[in-house]
Amino acid sequence: MMKWLDEAGERFLAHISLDCVVFGWHANQLKILLLKVKNLDVLALPGGFVMQQETLEEAAIRTLQERTGVENVFLRQFRVFSDPLRSNPEDRARDLEMMGIGRKRAAWFAQRFISVGFYSLVDFSKVDPRPDMFSETCSWYNLEDRGKMILDHDHILQTALAALRMQLNHQPIGYNLLPRKFTLPELQKLYETILGKKLDRRNFQRKVFSYGILRSLDEKRTGVAHKAPYLYSFDLRQYQKALKLGLQGGW
Amino acid sequence: MMKWLDEAGERFLAHISLDCVVFGWHANQLKILLLKVKNLDVLALPGGFVMQQETLEEAAIRTLQERTGVENVFLRQFRVFSDPLRSNPEDRARDLEMMGIGRKRAAWFAQRFISVGFYSLVDFSKVDPRPDMFSETCSWYNLEDRGKMILDHDHILQTALAALRMQLNHQPIGYNLLPRKFTLPELQKLYETILGKKLDRRNFQRKVFSYGILRSLDEKRTGVAHKAPYLYSFDLRQYQKALKLGLQGGW
Repeated sequence: MMKWLDEAGERFLAHISLDCVVFGWHANQLKILLLKVKNLDVLALPGGFVMQQETLEEAAIRTLQERTGVENVFLRQFRVFSDPLRSNPEDRARDLEMMGIGRKRAAWFAQRFISVGFYSLVDFSKVDPRPDMFSETCSWYNLEDRGKMILDHDHILQTALAALRMQLNHQPIGYNLLPRKFTLPELQKLYETILGKKLDRRNFQRKVFSYGILRSLDEKRTGVAHKAPYLYSFDLRQYQKALKLGLQGGW
Repeated sequence: MMKWLDEAGERFLAHISLDCVVFGWHANQLKILLLKVKNLDVLALPGGFVMQQETLEEAAIRTLQERTGVENVFLRQFRVFSDPLRSNPEDRARDLEMMGIGRKRAAWFAQRFISVGFYSLVDFSKVDPRPDMFSETCSWYNLEDRGKMILDHDHILQTALAALRMQLNHQPIGYNLLPRKFTLPELQKLYETILGKKLDRRNFQRKVFSYGILRSLDEKRTGVAHKAPYLYSFDLRQYQKALKLGLQGGW
């Protein structure tokens, strides 16, 4: 870790960081992947810095891989966070001391960072998160019962959710969050969670079918108590085409 | 100008810049505000840097004021441009030489910049653009017949247009581009231009009225050859409310 800190100033561009809000979907709930910072009772989004010859997107992919072990993610920039006071220098100094990072080594972290927010969507069933050297744990949290978050990370998370809501009709969000096969009630629950409201079942199904983006699999969900629901998957070509127009049909 | 250059390293954060794509609407056409760089036969978006204690938004507002004289604008971040090769070092060195900026002084411009793109909407009739010390002219161009642009500014402009298209139902774009009073054909033309396609007149009017965002002014456009069309203005409260839901009604 000390080597990493000593080399940060040479490896990375000053003043620019990035933070990733990683969403997953499990048991009909939206989950978010957070790190518990070593020696601090606080959670953090997986974040990092930009190497001299990297794009932001490359830096975000590398950061997620290094800090959480998560690979092959869908990610999109959604906002830049640039409040000069987003990191309180006193709080920061105390945190770094508690993490056992000396003053000189902490200089890299003590500068002002403008942070580019990415949201990232992963298939929950396919990732196996593991913490990096700065973290005690790396695990999934429910949106409602996450704990205290470091810096302005709570604000970044809320803003990512708002972006997700706005882009639901323009980005392949369902495709990247759901497993390959899913039922209509599962898809509806995903939309309801992101939009933050109940949807009428019949209206929802009518709309979804009208876009022609679903492929019926002629296969049922097994192991459920009541009437077994049919499984569907996305017709990716149709889905991409519909997203281009905006799923609501446009003007 | 030399003083500005000598102090840039102290005043601004390294590696971070911003570029503004300023849209206006005039004579039923979408216009864009561009600077002609001194001694270079090339156009540029008004861009700038972030002072030590500024947010990005504050920096963008100040940059527009300093470089174009334009104030009171609506602006939104839309994307960060971070390709390490977005500025070709050789081209850059030649440009700076032609601008009469010596090598040592040019060091600030020669570093790698990650640029945050803002789109900005102004009421064409209310602004009086004027160039800054780096520019020969500051004027409005039609999208189709703008000239060669510096760096990746053409790409930034195209991306801003795509963002405008996507956000047409979520941001008060019509409100910020049109004069206070406008006719329905003018509003339709604005939508057609941004969306890049013809819209059916009756469908368009039915939709717009269904949102309740227009206030009929009981007043007609004068000085037109044929049947004089009625004037409208936006009901800002209703408009904001409708945008929150997304103008297409949502799910």
